[in-house]
Amino acid sequence: MKISIAQVAQLLGGTIEGNETNEVWSVGKIEEAHEGQISFLSNPKYEEFVYSTNASAVIVNKTFSPKKDYHTTLIRVEDAYIAFTMLLEHYDKVKNFSKVGIEEPSYIHETATTGENIYRAAFSHIGSGAKIGNNVKIYPQVQIGDNVTIGDNTILYAGVKVYADCVIGSGCTLHANSVVGSDGFGFAPQKDGSYKSIPQIGNVIIKNNVSIGANTVVDCATMGSTIIHEGVKLDNLIQIAHNVEVEKNTVMAAQAGVSGSTKIGENCIIGGQVGLAGHINIANKTTIGAQAGLGKGTKEGDVLLGSPAMAKLSYAKSLSVFKKLPELQKRVNELEEKIVNLPTIQEG
Amino acid sequence: MKISIAQVAQLLGGTIEGNETNEVWSVGKIEEAHEGQISFLSNPKYEEFVYSTNASAVIVNKTFSPKKDYHTTLIRVEDAYIAFTMLLEHYDKVKNFSKVGIEEPSYIHETATTGENIYRAAFSHIGSGAKIGNNVKIYPQVQIGDNVTIGDNTILYAGVKVYADCVIGSGCTLHANSVVGSDGFGFAPQKDGSYKSIPQIGNVIIKNNVSIGANTVVDCATMGSTIIHEGVKLDNLIQIAHNVEVEKNTVMAAQAGVSGSTKIGENCIIGGQVGLAGHINIANKTTIGAQAGLGKGTKEGDVLLGSPAMAKLSYAKSLSVFKKLPELQKRVNELEEKIVNLPTIQEG
Amino acid sequence: MKISIAQVAQLLGGTIEGNETNEVWSVGKIEEAHEGQISFLSNPKYEEFVYSTNASAVIVNKTFSPKKDYHTTLIRVEDAYIAFTMLLEHYDKVKNFSKVGIEEPSYIHETATTGENIYRAAFSHIGSGAKIGNNVKIYPQVQIGDNVTIGDNTILYAGVKVYADCVIGSGCTLHANSVVGSDGFGFAPQKDGSYKSIPQIGNVIIKNNVSIGANTVVDCATMGSTIIHEGVKLDNLIQIAHNVEVEKNTVMAAQAGVSGSTKIGENCIIGGQVGLAGHINIANKTTIGAQAGLGKGTKEGDVLLGSPAMAKLSYAKSLSVFKKLPELQKRVNELEEKIVNLPTIQEG
Repeated sequence: MKISIAQVAQLLGGTIEGNETNEVWSVGKIEEAHEGQISFLSNPKYEEFVYSTNASAVIVNKTFSPKKDYHTTLIRVEDAYIAFTMLLEHYDKVKNFSKVGIEEPSYIHETATTGENIYRAAFSHIGSGAKIGNNVKIYPQVQIGDNVTIGDNTILYAGVKVYADCVIGSGCTLHANSVVGSDGFGFAPQKDGSYKSIPQIGNVIIKNNVSIGANTVVDCATMGSTIIHEGVKLDNLIQIAHNVEVEKNTVMAAQAGVSGSTKIGENCIIGGQVGLAGHINIANKTTIGAQAGLGKGTKEGDVLLGSPAMAKLSYAKSLSVFKKLPELQKRVNELEEKIVNLPTIQEG
Repeated sequence: MKISIAQVAQLLGGTIEGNETNEVWSVGKIEEAHEGQISFLSNPKYEEFVYSTNASAVIVNKTFSPKKDYHTTLIRVEDAYIAFTMLLEHYDKVKNFSKVGIEEPSYIHETATTGENIYRAAFSHIGSGAKIGNNVKIYPQVQIGDNVTIGDNTILYAGVKVYADCVIGSGCTLHANSVVGSDGFGFAPQKDGSYKSIPQIGNVIIKNNVSIGANTVVDCATMGSTIIHEGVKLDNLIQIAHNVEVEKNTVMAAQAGVSGSTKIGENCIIGGQVGLAGHINIANKTTIGAQAGLGKGTKEGDVLLGSPAMAKLSYAKSLSVFKKLPELQKRVNELEEKIVNLPTIQEG
Repeated sequence: MKISIAQVAQLLGGTIEGNETNEVWSVGKIEEAHEGQISFLSNPKYEEFVYSTNASAVIVNKTFSPKKDYHTTLIRVEDAYIAFTMLLEHYDKVKNFSKVGIEEPSYIHETATTGENIYRAAFSHIGSGAKIGNNVKIYPQVQIGDNVTIGDNTILYAGVKVYADCVIGSGCTLHANSVVGSDGFGFAPQKDGSYKSIPQIGNVIIKNNVSIGANTVVDCATMGSTIIHEGVKLDNLIQIAHNVEVEKNTVMAAQAGVSGSTKIGENCIIGGQVGLAGHINIANKTTIGAQAGLGKGTKEGDVLLGSPAMAKLSYAKSLSVFKKLPELQKRVNELEEKIVNLPTIQEG
């Protein structure tokens, strides 16, 4: 987005010293910003960069008094750091909520309903009976299956696919090409060695303020619902299997995987590439380090590392010995030799 | 899907006690079902829930004789469990095969052909020379490349992409945003440190009754074919590299990865996040635990754990000592001290 | 693609012995090629297959003198191996650059611009202010966000999504359903246990000749740019987090994951399912084995294995003892018993 320096100053309640008609269209750190970017000076350590920066504008404290010449435009505000944060949030809001209206061709079944102020991009597809709230943004090539419900202010980026009957809350963000409601992986072995698929007739329920990363998959329940509770943040390329339940405000880093029917408590922190077995209970406030593997449940507050996972401290201790195992083995060899050299004494 | 209780009863050959005009639109366990859901009672242990359930209908055995008041509608059948299974399968069939017809706009090249009774959703794209069988369901935003062949009764969910020249059998299910036939990862190092891409001119052949999970990728062969044999079930977010061959009825859990040219036998069970190196042979009936890593092939019936993988029992034994390594180290320290205290004796 | 044997011969500057009007449409190894395929004979060890092959044509050296009857058509060239490589490259070029023109319906904002000779498939979506170079191939269901820039000769396969403001160079290949520019995973914990999303206002810059695999995700920077330098090759299902920088000619195998703000040097080789922690520096020419996990940076030329990663040789040594840990434990047990049997001597 392009915005004139005068508009930025107005937004932040600041005053301008320099060119106010120039436009800025992105944001940069003062030490690396280039033309067209806006930056800020809060920490006095960075003052020197004000005099050399290529940023088109720099937000500074009201009280800032330059000691040298400068070539940029200053915007003076009460508190430069707070003003910059405000600007970021404004930028974010514009980025996410500027899209409005209906692009054609797009497809919406005659029985589906949508709220006010929505964006429905070209090549998006909304099935029968779907109910879409207000201010929802549906980017290109999104598919919303039959009877899906989506709350207000939710954003579905390009290529998101939501299978029939799923429920998505308000204020959620689903990133590009994420999938919600695909069949759970359920197959019954047959006598001839083949597998017969078990009907997956449940759905996914995503509560409010949930974030789903790009290319992440949340499978539907075999029966009932896979549930992602309020405030959960899932990074990219995560696998959530059928009938999993993730309680509120738990965050999960990229490429983690959760097997079927596992329950994850509130406020857990789960690292990247972690694997959780099926049918286990992860207690509230569990922290699991990257690449760990859990075959069983946890107690509240556990901090775990390794595959299979151990308490953090125990793991660290075992690991430090693992690194010296060849030496330990050598010491055992030497002990055995010394002991062998003792027999005459034992006879003595 | 909504269906009246009368229709359910007719489908199952049952008789109704209660309101037969109400509709049900999903299925739930008797202890947690809510209005609009249908459930069943087979195990007498759950009888108590019949009297308190919120399900709109409960399927019961003909012989069931209520001991208390109930508020739901009963559907009496010969065997409640079998009837419920029938209902699930019916539901599944309706879910998967109710879509028929052509939505516009959709794109099909004039030289492509399609069979009878297909679903071709809006924004699907079918390239030149493609041959699509009967009863194939092509969801929105699917792309089928030039000269692709797809057998009867195969379902391609929203966003599936099939590259040119690939062959997909009958009765397959490809879940949303899965990719078939992308280039294998082949690059020849050049003298200047850069890489030149090696032409990837093979294809992917997927045999009958294969299931491909959401966001899973199957690369084409460098030359020849990457082959997924009959009855193979791949979960979500799996990587199958170029020239891999997976023999029939092997199942693979989410986020597993198979490197180039590796051959996997029949009826193997491969856990989540497993990694297989390239150019190895996994024998029939190999079972590999989650997160294991295999750098070499296996023998029939092997059960392997760990990264690098070891026989299950050996791994378990080493692991149990790993957990006590600090203690083992301490014991060696003590032994060394004791030995040091022996020298006068040795001199004796 | 179908091409007559006469055309192949002309392309390779060869002469034909046999039927020159037959067509070939793919390529195979001489020992397994079938009708319609073309193969080659370079290594004399494979000569026998010329006499039995089902290939429609075989490229042979000028000097080849058959010792038996054969049923295929020969194309004689100076050097069969070089000619075959030329054919592969031709095939690859045709495969990748034959698509030209605009299919409808497709969407392009009135302010976006495109170069010459581009392919813009049905259901592709190009946002406002986007600038697309010459010979760019935009497959079906691709989305190119507002203000995105794409250089010449770049291919975006079906379903690729590029978020607003990203920059992609020339000669790049983005495979199906890959995502460029999704929000970085940044959330600030609040007092009530919930998380507030941190505005992600940066972008992604992809330099020239970069390859991005199917379903791979590259997140935008929180501020500034996530940068993938020239010649980098990323396999499928890889996660590149916000503010990561990957220097030129580094290759990364499938399902690897790189956490936020990590810098990766030039000419590194990173194995499948590797995980890199955030804010670390991977030096030039680092080699990291599959499934390794790095919590800290590396030195140039390091070769690392394991999770957490160790120098290759150290890891191999520790691992070999790990496999014999039960035996080592037993030896320590025995030493302890022997020592216990010594006390009378010590008293002596």
